[in-house]
Amino acid sequence: MLSLAEIAQRTQGRVIGDELIYISGVGSLANARKGDLTYLSNQRYRSQLQNTRATAVLLSEQNVANCPIPAIVVGNPQLAFATIAREFDKREHVALGIDSTARIDSTARLGEDVRIGPNVIVGSHCEIGAHVELCANVSIGAHAKIGPNTSIRENVVVYHDVQIGSHCTIHANTSIGADGFGIAADDKGQLQEIPQVGRVRIGDDVLLGASVTIDRGTIDDTVVHDNVKIDDQVHIAHNCVVGAHSILCGRASLAGSVTLGEYCVLAGGVGIAGEGPVSIASGVEIGAMTFVSRDIAEPGRYSGATLHTDNRTWRRNVLRLNELDSMAKRLRHVENLLQNRERNDAGPSSAG
Amino acid sequence: MLSLAEIAQRTQGRVIGDELIYISGVGSLANARKGDLTYLSNQRYRSQLQNTRATAVLLSEQNVANCPIPAIVVGNPQLAFATIAREFDKREHVALGIDSTARIDSTARLGEDVRIGPNVIVGSHCEIGAHVELCANVSIGAHAKIGPNTSIRENVVVYHDVQIGSHCTIHANTSIGADGFGIAADDKGQLQEIPQVGRVRIGDDVLLGASVTIDRGTIDDTVVHDNVKIDDQVHIAHNCVVGAHSILCGRASLAGSVTLGEYCVLAGGVGIAGEGPVSIASGVEIGAMTFVSRDIAEPGRYSGATLHTDNRTWRRNVLRLNELDSMAKRLRHVENLLQNRERNDAGPSSAG
Amino acid sequence: MLSLAEIAQRTQGRVIGDELIYISGVGSLANARKGDLTYLSNQRYRSQLQNTRATAVLLSEQNVANCPIPAIVVGNPQLAFATIAREFDKREHVALGIDSTARIDSTARLGEDVRIGPNVIVGSHCEIGAHVELCANVSIGAHAKIGPNTSIRENVVVYHDVQIGSHCTIHANTSIGADGFGIAADDKGQLQEIPQVGRVRIGDDVLLGASVTIDRGTIDDTVVHDNVKIDDQVHIAHNCVVGAHSILCGRASLAGSVTLGEYCVLAGGVGIAGEGPVSIASGVEIGAMTFVSRDIAEPGRYSGATLHTDNRTWRRNVLRLNELDSMAKRLRHVENLLQNRERNDAGPSSAG
Repeated sequence: MLSLAEIAQRTQGRVIGDELIYISGVGSLANARKGDLTYLSNQRYRSQLQNTRATAVLLSEQNVANCPIPAIVVGNPQLAFATIAREFDKREHVALGIDSTARIDSTARLGEDVRIGPNVIVGSHCEIGAHVELCANVSIGAHAKIGPNTSIRENVVVYHDVQIGSHCTIHANTSIGADGFGIAADDKGQLQEIPQVGRVRIGDDVLLGASVTIDRGTIDDTVVHDNVKIDDQVHIAHNCVVGAHSILCGRASLAGSVTLGEYCVLAGGVGIAGEGPVSIASGVEIGAMTFVSRDIAEPGRYSGATLHTDNRTWRRNVLRLNELDSMAKRLRHVENLLQNRERNDAGPSSAG
Repeated sequence: MLSLAEIAQRTQGRVIGDELIYISGVGSLANARKGDLTYLSNQRYRSQLQNTRATAVLLSEQNVANCPIPAIVVGNPQLAFATIAREFDKREHVALGIDSTARIDSTARLGEDVRIGPNVIVGSHCEIGAHVELCANVSIGAHAKIGPNTSIRENVVVYHDVQIGSHCTIHANTSIGADGFGIAADDKGQLQEIPQVGRVRIGDDVLLGASVTIDRGTIDDTVVHDNVKIDDQVHIAHNCVVGAHSILCGRASLAGSVTLGEYCVLAGGVGIAGEGPVSIASGVEIGAMTFVSRDIAEPGRYSGATLHTDNRTWRRNVLRLNELDSMAKRLRHVENLLQNRERNDAGPSSAG
Repeated sequence: MLSLAEIAQRTQGRVIGDELIYISGVGSLANARKGDLTYLSNQRYRSQLQNTRATAVLLSEQNVANCPIPAIVVGNPQLAFATIAREFDKREHVALGIDSTARIDSTARLGEDVRIGPNVIVGSHCEIGAHVELCANVSIGAHAKIGPNTSIRENVVVYHDVQIGSHCTIHANTSIGADGFGIAADDKGQLQEIPQVGRVRIGDDVLLGASVTIDRGTIDDTVVHDNVKIDDQVHIAHNCVVGAHSILCGRASLAGSVTLGEYCVLAGGVGIAGEGPVSIASGVEIGAMTFVSRDIAEPGRYSGATLHTDNRTWRRNVLRLNELDSMAKRLRHVENLLQNRERNDAGPSSAG
C-alpha cells in the first residue's frame, strides 16, 4: 500500500486530490480495479480516462483538465508508472542462500547474499557477484563470471568462460556461449567444426529475453555492451559486437561478425547477414523483418520488407518481380523512341 | 492389438474384409509393415495403395474400388487414423505420484492422480489440477494454475501467476510468462525496463510446441484462448490476444498488443508488428513469411513474401525495386504523351 | 604448450623459423598476445600480419614473403588452425562416470566411459554409447539411442525413441522429437492433434546448435543424415529429410515434409514451406531470409529476399509492388501502340 503522497515523492510528481488516498495495485486505464493506480501517456487512450475505475492516475500537465479521478502530475507518466509498478511486482525471488540441491564447485567464489535455487550448477573457478539470483536448473560453466545484482531465470545455460555484468536480467531457457557456427570442408568434403575458443562478454544493465542464443567467438569474443535490451528468441552469432543502449526486438538475428553501433533499434525479425563482416552505424533503426546484407554508414531509419495484401493481388504481382529489370529497360526504350520522334517531328533541320 | 471390428467401432467405420484381423501398429502407405494399419486421405498418394505392405487401410467411400487389402471405410480417414494411432503411441508417461526429487511448495494444491517427475519445482500457492503431468525439470512459478489433464514436457518454464487451462500439451523448453519487452529511455538516455505485472492466461485444449515464448502482459494479461494450436519457436509478445481455434505455424511471431481473431491460420515465419496495436479479423489466413504491419478487417487469405529465383535473376531484379515508384511515374508520363499525340493526331477541331 | 615442430607435424606443415619456439594459446591476427599462434587465410586480413603480436602464424605458401614472425606453411591455414585450436579449448568435460543425482532407468544400457552429469534423466531401454557426454539437466526419453562419442550439452531434451548417431554435438536447450505439428479440424470445427508416432533419426557427425527444434515424424521418421551442421534456432518440422553434408544457418526453418538434398547450404532465416511436400536438389545454396515455396530441381544458388534501403525510398516503392502487374500490362500496351504507329508510319501499303 502506498499513499498518493508517497507516490508523488518517488516520482517527483504533484498530487491533485487527496494525498492520503492509498493504492494497492496497478492497472491499465481500461481494466484497472478500485484501489489501482493507472497512467496515461499516449493520447490514443485519452478517452479511456473518463471511464476508468482506477483510484488514481499518473499523467502529464497537458492532460490534467477534466481528469475525473485523483491524479499525480509528472514529466514522464510511463517511467513514473514503471517506478511504482515495480513495487507491486509479485514475483517471489529465490530464497536467500544456497539451495541444498545446488551443486557449487569448491573453487567457485560467491559474493554475499546470493540466491541460488534448486538444481543449480556452478562450475569450477566461477565468480558469482553479491546479490546474484540463479533460479532453478540454471547451469553456469567453469570460469564464468556473473556481476553483482544480476538475475538469471530458470533453465538458462551459461557456458564456460562467459562474462556477464551487473544488474542484468536473463530470462528462461536462454543459452549464452554455445559454440559459434564455424564450419569448413576438409580435403575429403567432410564438414568440420572450427573450434570456438573465444568468449561471450556481456556488459552491465543488459536484458536478455527467453530462448535467446548468443554464441561464443571463434578466437576473439562476442560482445554485448552495457544497457543493451534484447527480446525473446533473438540470435547473436559468433564475433558480433552490439553497441551500448541498443534494442533488439523479438527474433532479430545477427549472423557472424556483425558490428552494431550504439543506440540502434532492430525491430522484430530483422536479419543482418553479409558475405563478410557487416557494420551498422550508431543510431540506426531498422524496420521489422528487414534483411540487411551490407554496411549502413549513416544513422537513420531503414526498411526493406514487403507488405501483405490479399492473396489474389499478391499472386498477380509477386511473379512480375522477375520481369522488373526487363520492364525498366523496355520503359527506357519506349522513352527513347518517343524522344527521338519528338526530335524527328521537330524537323530534320534540328537534327542536322 | 486391435481387431478391424474394434477399429471400425471406434471410428464409426465399416469393415471390408475379415473383421477378426488384428493390427499391431500404424504406418504410412509407403513404409507400413505387416501388421500395420495405414490410411489414404490425399489423392496424391492413391497410387501407393497398390503396393503397400500394410495389413489394412482406412479410406473414404470413393477409394474403395480396387483396394487390394482389407479396408475400413470412414468419413474422414485422417481423423480416424489419428484416433487409432493414439492407441499405439509409445510415449511413457511420468510415473503416477510425486518424484522424490520434486520440490513442491507446502502451500501448493495438487489434484488427484498427478504425475510429477524428477527435479520439478512447484512454487507457492500453485494449483495443479487432477491428472496433470509435469515432466522432468519443469518449473512452475508461484501462484500459477494448471488445469486438469494438462501435460507439460521436460524443461518448460512457467513463470509466476500464469494460468493454463485443461487438456493442454506444452512441449520442451518452452517459456510462458517471461517479462514483456517494454523499454523506455529515461532522462539520461539510459534504457529502463517497464515492469510487466500482467499475467499470461491460456485456455483449454491448447497446444504449444517446443521453444515457444509467450510473454506476460505489461499491466493487462496476454491471452491465448481455447483450442489454439501453436507450433515450435512461435513468439507471442506482451498484451497479445489469440482467438480460439487459431493455428500458428513454426516461427510465427506476434509483436506487442497484436489481437488475432478466431479460426486464423498463420503459416510459418509470419510476423505481425505495427507501430501501435494491430488487429486481425477472425478467419484470416496469412501465407508463409509474410510481414503484416497493419490491421486486417476482412476474413480471407493474405500474403506478402517474395519468391525465390536463381541468384542471377534475383540480383538483376531486386535492385530495381528502388526505381519502382519512378518507373510508375515515367510510365504514366509516356501514356500521357501518347494520349496527347492521339488527340493531336485526331486534329485541332476535336480538341477545340 | 606445443612447439612449432609439433604443430607442423600435426598440420603436415613446414616451419619457417625456430622449430623450438613454444605456443601457449591461440588468437586472431588483430588480438593475439605473446605466446599465441594465429593464422592468415583470407587476403582481407593480410595487412594485419605486419602488426600482429602473435608468436607464430599458420599461412599458405603465397603469403610467406615478408612474414615478420615465425610461420608454419600449410595447405589450408583455417583447417590447420582448427586442429591446433582444439588443443587449447578450455571446456571442462563432465566428470567420468555417473553423477549421483542422475536418474538412469535400470533397463538402460550404458557404454564404457560415459560422462553423465547432475540431474540427467535416462529413460527405460535407452542405449547410451561409449564415451557419450550428457551434461547437466539433459533428459533422454525411453528407448532413445545415443551413439558413441556424442556430446549433449545442458538442458537438452531428447524425446522417446529418438536415434542419434556417433560423434555428434548438441547444444543447450535444444529439443529433439517433440510432436510434429499435425492439426485437423473435427466435425464440430474443434482442432485435434494428429498423433505423431514416427521418430527422429540423426546420423553421425551431426552438429545441432542451441535452441534447435527437430520434430518427430507423423508416421514415418524425420531424418537428419550424416555430417549435417545446424546452427542455433533452426526448426525442422515433421517428416523432413535433410541430406548428408548440408549446412543450415541460424533460424533457417523447414516446414513439414521438406526434403533437402546433400551438400545444400541454407543461409540464415531461410524458410522452406509449400502447399505440399517440397523437394530441394543436392548442391543447392539459398540466400539469407529467402522464402522457398516450391521444388528446386537444379543445383545452384537461389535467393528471394528484398534489400534494405532508407525508409523514405522504401515507403515510396514498396506500395507500388501492388501495381506491378498493371504496370507490366500498361507497358506492353504502350509498346504495342508504338509498334502499330511505326507500321502505320511506314505506310498503308506495307499493312495491305
